Amino acid sequence: MTAWEEWLAAEAASREAAGLTRRLRPRAADDVTIDLAGNDYLGLARDPEVRQTAADAALRWGSSASASRLVTGTLALHEELETALAAYLAQPAALVFSTGYHANLAVVSALADRGTRVLSDAHVHASLVDAVRLSRARLSVVPHSDVDAVRAGLAAAAEAGERALVLVESVYSVLGDAAPLVELATLCEEYDALLVVDEAHAVGVHGPGLVATLGLAGLPHVVVTATLSKALGAQGGAVLGPVALREHLVNRARPFIFDTGLAPAPTAGALAALRAVRSRPGLGALVRERVAALADVLGVVAPAGAVLSVPMSSPQAAVAAQAAALEAGLRVGCFRPPSVPDGISRLRITVTAGVADDDWARAVDVLVALVKEHQ
Amino acid sequence: MTAWEEWLAAEAASREAAGLTRRLRPRAADDVTIDLAGNDYLGLARDPEVRQTAADAALRWGSSASASRLVTGTLALHEELETALAAYLAQPAALVFSTGYHANLAVVSALADRGTRVLSDAHVHASLVDAVRLSRARLSVVPHSDVDAVRAGLAAAAEAGERALVLVESVYSVLGDAAPLVELATLCEEYDALLVVDEAHAVGVHGPGLVATLGLAGLPHVVVTATLSKALGAQGGAVLGPVALREHLVNRARPFIFDTGLAPAPTAGALAALRAVRSRPGLGALVRERVAALADVLGVVAPAGAVLSVPMSSPQAAVAAQAAALEAGLRVGCFRPPSVPDGISRLRITVTAGVADDDWARAVDVLVALVKEHQ
Repeated sequence: MTAWEEWLAAEAASREAAGLTRRLRPRAADDVTIDLAGNDYLGLARDPEVRQTAADAALRWGSSASASRLVTGTLALHEELETALAAYLAQPAALVFSTGYHANLAVVSALADRGTRVLSDAHVHASLVDAVRLSRARLSVVPHSDVDAVRAGLAAAAEAGERALVLVESVYSVLGDAAPLVELATLCEEYDALLVVDEAHAVGVHGPGLVATLGLAGLPHVVVTATLSKALGAQGGAVLGPVALREHLVNRARPFIFDTGLAPAPTAGALAALRAVRSRPGLGALVRERVAALADVLGVVAPAGAVLSVPMSSPQAAVAAQAAALEAGLRVGCFRPPSVPDGISRLRITVTAGVADDDWARAVDVLVALVKEHQ
Repeated sequence: MTAWEEWLAAEAASREAAGLTRRLRPRAADDVTIDLAGNDYLGLARDPEVRQTAADAALRWGSSASASRLVTGTLALHEELETALAAYLAQPAALVFSTGYHANLAVVSALADRGTRVLSDAHVHASLVDAVRLSRARLSVVPHSDVDAVRAGLAAAAEAGERALVLVESVYSVLGDAAPLVELATLCEEYDALLVVDEAHAVGVHGPGLVATLGLAGLPHVVVTATLSKALGAQGGAVLGPVALREHLVNRARPFIFDTGLAPAPTAGALAALRAVRSRPGLGALVRERVAALADVLGVVAPAGAVLSVPMSSPQAAVAAQAAALEAGLRVGCFRPPSVPDGISRLRITVTAGVADDDWARAVDVLVALVKEHQ
């Protein structure tokens, strides 16, 4: 055995001993299980028009952008999507990336360096955590949604003469709570800092996202990142904000410059989904209604987004409830330590507009019964 | 103006003053310019069967994987592609990522930490450079393809009791030269180190890549990363190597775990392209023949890959030749300082099997004439 083989074996054994080994479970195209674990919040990834538009783009443009965006990999389709995203999110400009992870890596690493102070909320997504590490900025992790702690951090940065970035999500994934965006934007204006808001879980569910809904879009001190792979049913991500920021990213963001452009099919799929979101505002409203009603019957606080977390008494109870749901034809998620910020195991239920009314009613009945049994 | 607006404006002004501002130039679907600047080496991104297969997948599976691979985002299609990639590249296992950048970030950051020594060739791709930074490993940049320097670095790491990773590309992008893979693999075996080979520019052009061609596939101390967005005409990347490595990445690689799975259309597109590469070995052979012939008439050394670099006397001459090519219906690339490792401006010509014989003959005539005029 080589040293690396021994190391891999030791790592695997320690995961196995801790009961933390994760395995991939492929699903089939004709799988009839109702998916309440993914992120297709509005059901648009399987919408007939979105599928057809994605398919047509593969036929028309080919299956690849075939080059970096700065060489010959920028398609008219990318610009069309960027224009549509900027218009809908009420921002001056948008730049599309091939994953949401790339978008977050890009915005932070192109703006922050060793001389920058980053105040990052304790609950932000892994891609933002990695982005800060990549940027080599001075990092302060701020207690979750603690406005006073952000104020103190910004005051200290101003004192030290550091440019400051504040990183938050508008709706957090695990707990489903919303960030205090208005207060944070005011603070960032006051301290001449930049607020970066990841709207991955808000766009679509809350129309153009919470930044736009709260009247914060277009402010020079508020930047948005978004994903195209959740409510917009495709793949990729975007950064939205001032025109000068877009130009800066085109010139300086390594995860943009050294990556092949997003493939035609998901680009066109996101564009079609965006049109559906605009023309059918009832989709987001339906998700919010279903979330509120389900939270009510399960006796939990309604989340700000589409994902509802139900605290369970133990990791075993969460796993048992998840297995029972699958028996009943529902795929739900399950969060156990160490992937929860507070050590509490949870059933994680994605509410989606992509399930027909009668199926949804049946799903609710099943969920209520099994939470009662296993909680 | 906010402090951030001032900073962005100063950055833009300094780029502009240095003549380094980059701008996106979108292309239309019906653009008839012959693209000798992208990475569609075998012409498969626009191959009718590849396009159709990608389109069919969007219709059948939807336009998104809709979740992380570990939640519900692993499609049977992903596993089919992974099985086919592993078989063709003669490796025990493969794991697909949504970009090649993700694949490189993943393999390095999941294997290396503060206690690991990384010996990275001076010419490796930006994604590998960023991967090392993300991993926080101890980095030694090794002079380009300098086997003695790698030996010295490995000896020092062994002395210090550090696990060691060596990062190279099988064919380098800018200069088009091949790495001394056999010597490096022997050294890594001798010093119990792991050799990570990025085959982005070799797979397809050299069949299953240089690692397989040289009989190094399947060795426990040789790991391969590949891209699906160049010869395989789609989007995404892959890591290939031991089964235990794949399992480690599934469990530990943050750029895999916290990312939506690759969309169905590019997944199926890559699979169809892989079938074409296997059933039509003449494609890779045609590229290699065209490269050799073009290098000969231009009086430059033939590269190991599909991209031919022609040194020009000045940045201005390179730009003028590029503009003249465009006038004649050919899109070629142009490398100027600071994006060349040795300060020499170059015309960069991608040779592709995707251009018909008569168009190719015309392109060669145009290129010979304009290099003569501008070099």
